[in-house]
Amino acid sequence: MDMTLREIAAIVGGTVEGDVGLRITGLNGLKEAQAGDLSFFADPRYQPYLETTPAAALVVDAAFADGRRPLIRVGNPYFAFAQLLKHLESLLLVHPKGIHPSAAVAPTAVLGEGVALDAHVCIADGAQIGARTVLYAGVYIGRDAVIGPDCVLYPHVSIRERVRLGARCIIHANSTLGTDGFGFMAVGGKRVKIPQIGSVIVGDDVEIGSNTSIDRSTTGNTTIGSGTKIDNLVQIGHNVSVGENCTISGSTGISGSTLIGNNVTIGGQVGTAGHLKIGDHSMIGARTGVNKSVPENSVVSGYPMHDHQVTRRIMASLEYLPDALRRLRKLEKRAQDLEP
Amino acid sequence: MDMTLREIAAIVGGTVEGDVGLRITGLNGLKEAQAGDLSFFADPRYQPYLETTPAAALVVDAAFADGRRPLIRVGNPYFAFAQLLKHLESLLLVHPKGIHPSAAVAPTAVLGEGVALDAHVCIADGAQIGARTVLYAGVYIGRDAVIGPDCVLYPHVSIRERVRLGARCIIHANSTLGTDGFGFMAVGGKRVKIPQIGSVIVGDDVEIGSNTSIDRSTTGNTTIGSGTKIDNLVQIGHNVSVGENCTISGSTGISGSTLIGNNVTIGGQVGTAGHLKIGDHSMIGARTGVNKSVPENSVVSGYPMHDHQVTRRIMASLEYLPDALRRLRKLEKRAQDLEP
Amino acid sequence: MDMTLREIAAIVGGTVEGDVGLRITGLNGLKEAQAGDLSFFADPRYQPYLETTPAAALVVDAAFADGRRPLIRVGNPYFAFAQLLKHLESLLLVHPKGIHPSAAVAPTAVLGEGVALDAHVCIADGAQIGARTVLYAGVYIGRDAVIGPDCVLYPHVSIRERVRLGARCIIHANSTLGTDGFGFMAVGGKRVKIPQIGSVIVGDDVEIGSNTSIDRSTTGNTTIGSGTKIDNLVQIGHNVSVGENCTISGSTGISGSTLIGNNVTIGGQVGTAGHLKIGDHSMIGARTGVNKSVPENSVVSGYPMHDHQVTRRIMASLEYLPDALRRLRKLEKRAQDLEP
Repeated sequence: MDMTLREIAAIVGGTVEGDVGLRITGLNGLKEAQAGDLSFFADPRYQPYLETTPAAALVVDAAFADGRRPLIRVGNPYFAFAQLLKHLESLLLVHPKGIHPSAAVAPTAVLGEGVALDAHVCIADGAQIGARTVLYAGVYIGRDAVIGPDCVLYPHVSIRERVRLGARCIIHANSTLGTDGFGFMAVGGKRVKIPQIGSVIVGDDVEIGSNTSIDRSTTGNTTIGSGTKIDNLVQIGHNVSVGENCTISGSTGISGSTLIGNNVTIGGQVGTAGHLKIGDHSMIGARTGVNKSVPENSVVSGYPMHDHQVTRRIMASLEYLPDALRRLRKLEKRAQDLEP
Repeated sequence: MDMTLREIAAIVGGTVEGDVGLRITGLNGLKEAQAGDLSFFADPRYQPYLETTPAAALVVDAAFADGRRPLIRVGNPYFAFAQLLKHLESLLLVHPKGIHPSAAVAPTAVLGEGVALDAHVCIADGAQIGARTVLYAGVYIGRDAVIGPDCVLYPHVSIRERVRLGARCIIHANSTLGTDGFGFMAVGGKRVKIPQIGSVIVGDDVEIGSNTSIDRSTTGNTTIGSGTKIDNLVQIGHNVSVGENCTISGSTGISGSTLIGNNVTIGGQVGTAGHLKIGDHSMIGARTGVNKSVPENSVVSGYPMHDHQVTRRIMASLEYLPDALRRLRKLEKRAQDLEP
Repeated sequence: MDMTLREIAAIVGGTVEGDVGLRITGLNGLKEAQAGDLSFFADPRYQPYLETTPAAALVVDAAFADGRRPLIRVGNPYFAFAQLLKHLESLLLVHPKGIHPSAAVAPTAVLGEGVALDAHVCIADGAQIGARTVLYAGVYIGRDAVIGPDCVLYPHVSIRERVRLGARCIIHANSTLGTDGFGFMAVGGKRVKIPQIGSVIVGDDVEIGSNTSIDRSTTGNTTIGSGTKIDNLVQIGHNVSVGENCTISGSTGISGSTLIGNNVTIGGQVGTAGHLKIGDHSMIGARTGVNKSVPENSVVSGYPMHDHQVTRRIMASLEYLPDALRRLRKLEKRAQDLEP
């Protein structure tokens, strides 16, 4: 990176205070910034780093008043930072283009305008790929699957038959959508497979991390609402419904038939028991074991799950339990001694 | 789907009570069923839904007595439902056929009759693929690996060298069998790799989810018994032995050298310490931290692990711990005041 | 395997006591050894197995004095065992050789001397592959990525653009390096992607398990130090720094911006909250929920995390909690009865 403050201000729609010709060679958080870097100040907790950072210049908001460095003043410094990252990404991230000759496209598959297929992509019969969608090397699209326009699927993503993705979805490498749900019934001491003939329907603007698995439903559809973001190594069971604008962090497992509302935030390594309902706008702390349904607007954590404030108190108390047991025995002994 | 009750009854071996020509357009659980759907009644807990379901007809057993809708009467409604799903799946699920020209098959690999190789499959020297087995796009079969007949391996499954699968196994996308076990020894402050020269042996009728990893053993074999079903994102360490007809749910990790008996049921996000034994017919609740061996026929849960009933009591008690500590201090204060 | 004790002693640099011509047909731990096997004795806890093992011969150290079987005497029996495994592996493990005609190598990619590319490998523009490195079937190397010499990448590994690996790294199947970090900001009720333009830098002699995900950083680099070993199904978030000679066991998740020192040992299913520091030489027990920073040389476990000895006491106490609550109520009742 090598840009002047003037060029950067133009990209983020800000105004420069100081040397407009100052050359910026990197971009970093206030804590990590080095000489020559542009950084940003958006969170008062980072105030101490203002004293020590060697950053060459800062992106700040209207309230900021520290004249030590050249500034770019904007409405929302964090958003401006994201915009600048987006600009730099547009220079750095070069997706595959065109149809690689090794791509295997079934005769009845339909490719939209400007679709890019990297090497060794495989598209099965009846599948449809939306305009401008990019499929990286080795992506598999199953029979009659439908991928919306402007999606990016990274290497070795596997989209099984009849799965549907909306527009502008990003699916990271080695993830799997449409795996058979984990359904068996006991017949004479054996586990007999219950066929999973449903599918998975994903909305628009959904991002799914790498090595994540989303199961197809028994009948009907597992659904992921528009705007929802799912991290790496997440397991989504069959017949689950995830609402819109949710985030689900890494290594979390959502059991079958869980219903998750809109705008739900789920931390990492969370697990949910099956057939529960998680209300809109609820927040589930990392490592929560969700063993009952969660009302709207709740903030919960712990295992067993409680209101987050209750869990905090339980966690703070655990340390004192061994000693409390000893003290309880001592009290009992004294009480016994008091007996007539 | 568009079938008459008569056609469906023929598939599940049942008898129609009501309009045999009624057209069914979907299939669903009693809770989810919509107009035109066939549903089934097998669990008394679903009784309330009988009042409200718009299902067009029901599959029921001999004891069912509710004349409001056309019925298909069978011995086991749930099994009939699975049979019907199987029939529908046979119409919906069209596996790849033949040998795709892009498949890379080593000269010394042996393919059974009717094997299907999708695009970009790679089969290394000495590997054997059983009759009628289907390898989806990008499946990798390592040197001298043996895959039984009638298996289905979904896209990008990686079967490393010398791994052996029995008949009728299903392995879902992006799973890995035969990864080197995680074995290192400390030599002069460095971690030196202990080569893992064993393999993995999988029985018949095993199903393994997507993005699951099963490690090869140091010497000897990691083994998965016939009829066992393993979910997505499961980690099975080296030298593990899993018995027959087990189920292991998603995101569970089985540490090295764990011995798991037959007919064991393991919930999601369970972890086991290494070198433990889990007895036949035991049930391990979701999220259990298995920190000691589990006797046969046990039902255990929690971390630390206890009998499930003990864990339930501990979990129910935790909520009262912070207050109990306060009350204990109060009692101690009173006891002190009683001192002469 | 079919070798004489003489041949084996030559490989491990030991001396035979007993029949140098004895033929060994297998290799196994003392507990698992069968007739004809060579085993080793390095841990006094395995003493009881000396009585019962049918092993034909043992690798032992200078102190061992049990004349019942032929012996190979060495300085470090466990290390000798690893050496022997390495020898056997060199006979068993045959990597792909040469450039498979189906490999798709971009015109500007640079391949070192002796590189092996298996079927359906894809190497993007500007990528560099070090000498003698082996890429198994379907491996993807993104634009401008750099892979050091003597690496082995197993099937379907995905190395995203600009990621750098040192020498002698082993990456197991279906793992992903360089996934976009999980970063979004809330704008008008929607989650807007924060582009992740950083990368991942991996040192020398790093081994990474299968189905593991390592995220690229927002800016700067996620780093994995030389000699570090990471197991299967591990999630490493963006901007994480892992030091040298660490081990991270299966199903663990490291949240974004965590700084891990050198020689750190992390058990399975551990989770860390973001922005924490884990000091050199610390040991994090399996399933620990790391909710605060960990000083150097610590041994911690539990959730909430405590010194391991504290956690042991808490875990041992939990069982008595339900009864303690009952007893506390009883004492309170008695205290109340004592009131005047």
